[in-house]
Amino acid sequence: MTQYKYDVTMSCGGCSGAVTKALTKLEGVDKFDVSLEAQKVTVESATLSESEILAAIQKTGKTAKVAEQ
Amino acid sequence: MTQYKYDVTMSCGGCSGAVTKALTKLEGVDKFDVSLEAQKVTVESATLSESEILAAIQKTGKTAKVAEQ
Repeated sequence: MTQYKYDVTMSCGGCSGAVTKALTKLEGVDKFDVSLEAQKVTVESATLSESEILAAIQKTGKTAKVAEQ
Repeated sequence: MTQYKYDVTMSCGGCSGAVTKALTKLEGVDKFDVSLEAQKVTVESATLSESEILAAIQKTGKTAKVAEQ
């Protein structure tokens, strides 16, 4: 299980809700947290790569990048 | 060229911006308008079907349905 962190621009509950919905539907995600306040998304997965998860987040139309730790 | 209308739940400029970005990237869209105020999205296309466009909008994680005229 690997944990990945992303910076995602989310302005409101509708934005974070959209990211939540996308991650709920993404196969291979074991656990995730979407923080509107921190503008951060944390995802745990045993099978998906960092870039696969990033692509799924970006498909929501949000600006996202891998977070610098 | 056919015009399609959708009701899309968008709470802020980030929400409507995400839908705008998705439609900009969608091949086959000739013209579109995203109205945050009216919660409406209008799309003109010669090649895409009503349901193909709806699926692309829903991929942003927003709640969307075909608008009743």
